Amino acid sequence: MDDYLRKREELMLKDRALRYDHATDREPSADEVVADKVLRNIRTAEAESVWDPNRKTEQPHGSQQMFPGMEFLTARATIMSTQLFAILSKVRSLRDHFFELELDASQMPKGGLLHAHLDATVRADVLLELAMKQPAIHVRAPGKLSAGNFKTVLPEFRALPQAQWTQIPSITDPSYEPNTWVPIKNARGNFSDALGGPAGFDRWVVGALMIEPAEAYGTHNSTAKIWKKFQSTFGVSDGLIRFVPVWTEYVREFLLSSIEDGISYVEPRILFWFKHMIGADGKENVPHRVWLQMYERVLNEVKASLDVRGRADEFVGSKIIYSTLRIGTPEELEWYTEDCLALKVEFPHLIAGFDIVGHEDSLEPLIKYADVFLRFKERQKELGVDIPFVFHAGETLGDGTAADVNLYDAILLGTKRIGHGLSIYKHPHLMEICREKGICIEMCPISNEILRLTGSMPMHPLPAIMNHGVHVALCSDDPAVFGNMGLTFDFFQVFVASEVNGLITLRELVWDSIRFSNLDEEEKGRALSLLEKRWAQFVRHVLEEYGGSDAGGRLET
Amino acid sequence: MDDYLRKREELMLKDRALRYDHATDREPSADEVVADKVLRNIRTAEAESVWDPNRKTEQPHGSQQMFPGMEFLTARATIMSTQLFAILSKVRSLRDHFFELELDASQMPKGGLLHAHLDATVRADVLLELAMKQPAIHVRAPGKLSAGNFKTVLPEFRALPQAQWTQIPSITDPSYEPNTWVPIKNARGNFSDALGGPAGFDRWVVGALMIEPAEAYGTHNSTAKIWKKFQSTFGVSDGLIRFVPVWTEYVREFLLSSIEDGISYVEPRILFWFKHMIGADGKENVPHRVWLQMYERVLNEVKASLDVRGRADEFVGSKIIYSTLRIGTPEELEWYTEDCLALKVEFPHLIAGFDIVGHEDSLEPLIKYADVFLRFKERQKELGVDIPFVFHAGETLGDGTAADVNLYDAILLGTKRIGHGLSIYKHPHLMEICREKGICIEMCPISNEILRLTGSMPMHPLPAIMNHGVHVALCSDDPAVFGNMGLTFDFFQVFVASEVNGLITLRELVWDSIRFSNLDEEEKGRALSLLEKRWAQFVRHVLEEYGGSDAGGRLET
Repeated sequence: MDDYLRKREELMLKDRALRYDHATDREPSADEVVADKVLRNIRTAEAESVWDPNRKTEQPHGSQQMFPGMEFLTARATIMSTQLFAILSKVRSLRDHFFELELDASQMPKGGLLHAHLDATVRADVLLELAMKQPAIHVRAPGKLSAGNFKTVLPEFRALPQAQWTQIPSITDPSYEPNTWVPIKNARGNFSDALGGPAGFDRWVVGALMIEPAEAYGTHNSTAKIWKKFQSTFGVSDGLIRFVPVWTEYVREFLLSSIEDGISYVEPRILFWFKHMIGADGKENVPHRVWLQMYERVLNEVKASLDVRGRADEFVGSKIIYSTLRIGTPEELEWYTEDCLALKVEFPHLIAGFDIVGHEDSLEPLIKYADVFLRFKERQKELGVDIPFVFHAGETLGDGTAADVNLYDAILLGTKRIGHGLSIYKHPHLMEICREKGICIEMCPISNEILRLTGSMPMHPLPAIMNHGVHVALCSDDPAVFGNMGLTFDFFQVFVASEVNGLITLRELVWDSIRFSNLDEEEKGRALSLLEKRWAQFVRHVLEEYGGSDAGGRLET
Repeated sequence: MDDYLRKREELMLKDRALRYDHATDREPSADEVVADKVLRNIRTAEAESVWDPNRKTEQPHGSQQMFPGMEFLTARATIMSTQLFAILSKVRSLRDHFFELELDASQMPKGGLLHAHLDATVRADVLLELAMKQPAIHVRAPGKLSAGNFKTVLPEFRALPQAQWTQIPSITDPSYEPNTWVPIKNARGNFSDALGGPAGFDRWVVGALMIEPAEAYGTHNSTAKIWKKFQSTFGVSDGLIRFVPVWTEYVREFLLSSIEDGISYVEPRILFWFKHMIGADGKENVPHRVWLQMYERVLNEVKASLDVRGRADEFVGSKIIYSTLRIGTPEELEWYTEDCLALKVEFPHLIAGFDIVGHEDSLEPLIKYADVFLRFKERQKELGVDIPFVFHAGETLGDGTAADVNLYDAILLGTKRIGHGLSIYKHPHLMEICREKGICIEMCPISNEILRLTGSMPMHPLPAIMNHGVHVALCSDDPAVFGNMGLTFDFFQVFVASEVNGLITLRELVWDSIRFSNLDEEEKGRALSLLEKRWAQFVRHVLEEYGGSDAGGRLET
């Protein structure tokens, strides 16, 4: 038996050898070894005390059994009640008081956020609050609203030039003529009592901006169906966000709420599909370069505010991935690659990558645009700039479908990271290439689960990908739609769904989110050294707060 | 671009190079190339015409969206309506007329069935029919039956010695005293009208023997919960099956229905946990060696009947994997390994493997019994016999849990195949070992899906495993409980869920089910040459029947 046990140990080590949280070049510190046991003990205890499979949570679409890593939208409240979540989150402030607080050294630093679509990064209720301050914003509905069609008749928003502002008093009055614009204040203030009054208006709008459990797991329980609801949320939010006075505050909110969650760097994808934003005057004529000027201004304001309060170390900054949609002709795409080049020349420190986005299963594959991308690379050489591809690829359940095949093209075109890359676990050679070339996967586990690309965290291919030695950065994708604000929820779901994952897994995921960011080498060095300091503080905190006699007793066994 | 497309082609080939359906040592014939296109065209056409995601199927627990590879229990009727299923199945006879028919050369031969638990291989309604012929069989219920508790108050069956037979007239009469035995004929004949009369009795029993869609996808929608229902079916069926007069007919039915589906060899796991079967006299005293004598007798009768009708080539035979449960002490297990050795000495041609079975997530791991298994191997050497391990391992969503870790022990102990092995896609080194040592995975895709180890076929890790070059045999596991009788349903679900899979994939899966069987080399040679002949006939049939001008036209594009 001794011989058997020795061979067994060797076999397990060899099987895990590709995992970078098992790599020996960053051996855990003595503190980390103990803190790891503390976290594992809490996970084990809560698997029984919180996630007992005999408990059920009642939902509109039926009941749901409990288990660690279960469906996020049903589990969210339970997750937030756990000790483990308290340790990982440490949300330190409400937005209003953000600048009054100091850095809480006990917070787990999350590193960088490398995959998030800017227009789905701010809480729906906060977005609505921002919009309510703008008299230019009007809302309309394509039909008469009733309790029966509340979830299918969607609001459409738009900021109008003052000359077109209306006085229409209500969107729910029997006299309301569908498709006519109502000032948002009137629409909300006079929302019919039968539909819940102003609170009913909020529910109507927020429901159109977010995915609810009954939709994800009940009525829309397949990838193809839930994507339709998902896409519809962008149609609703666009009219609120793509308006200069809202957009700047939206960006500020995105940056502050990220910092609150312990995120020290953000690299959002900004969609430049629409060629203009609507200006404060209600005219749709604000070009892309002004978007970037505004982004930069807000970014600098946030950094300055942190600086003044001695909190500069919390946040190293932001760059942007230029995105457009995966629709249209190659010629049409070329307009965007040229636009991106021009912006890169003017804002070299901001533009850090290029991507095309949208539903891979139903929209165009990368190969359709391959020659445009190849020319784009030539043009970069001509202009002496570097805009790495950061392509979405493999966000699909398809096997050998165009969306799955996008992985080959992304890699051949030299993508620096892969957005989602969910299906890469089926591709042994591609995983080998990612491992060897250091192509990092931007994994969005909660997004995948809500969009029904996986049934739950234990079914998610993340462990397979990590065990093959592929680097991963955890990302929130569209937290405003999914409700997974910040990165804490994604870290939580990944941590509880595997016995292999430990503190060092979390650490390496955090580190990779900086290592594989588009920060330049100097910025990266600073970001990593700040991370090192905060991580050590976090680990000490776990030991001091949770590693007491009780946990200690358990540790010795 | 030409250069790009060439590199792309190379990359895809390299990524698929480990797949054995892409291996060049068995290049497809000219007929196979065309038949492959025919099947792919039908799959593509039916993905729209049958599996339109906007169609819904209404179920007691809500509605289900349609897509290829969707939840089996909801999709079953639709599957059976497809042309693709007609091609793959070609069920040739009803049981009663089995021997009146000739081999239909157009049927797709399925090869061997390598993973099925004997006591869940015969249709529930057929089992009930067999039981109805036995006056010794009695039934009881632990409480008063009502429409409200119809699904939770389970029947218990038992064959009684004649002296204990009762005259109790009804199991639903208000005077029925719970837990008293009622002759099955009375129980069925006098089943209350309020509960549906005799047909209601059948529904009660069949419902207790099978998993219904509402249970798998609604009320029990998690692995832990659905396993409880799954396990309860065995408690119900045991009292019906483990009775000599039923058991022999059950075995006959299993063999005949397998042959009907195009299966030419079966290697069922027989559970020897109970040390005795109940004899025709109602006494529980029939030892394991008599089970094997009976099995062999029925097997020979079936073969002789085929032989007489010139159909001997349809079926090469059966061997048995000795199984017991993964519970109890190592000492208790040793009784079974010794029992298995004794049976192997007496029935060397029948006993072909050893396994321990039961819910891996909650019962004992292999490591607990490692020393017993090592001694078992020593004892085999002493006795000059060879009983390969064919261990269940990795039938779990756990990552790094005991059930997942069973994979290491199965492989270290020298398992010849792995039962389920679902979680092996997370283990790069173990997949490498399987590939190099020729350890085949007995994959049970429909079983996995119903037991909620995967959400649907497109989420199943089978493509990842095949792409890593691991050999796979498709298996039905417990078709009587799941309703996936034969192997056709599993082949269907796998075929429609991946664009990579084609006719050659089906062929290699079929071949592997013989290559990795426990037939000896000579038997294997015969089985493979028979397979070769039938496969060629099947391919010709696909061409002649479905490869006409219409398909031909499509083929040229």
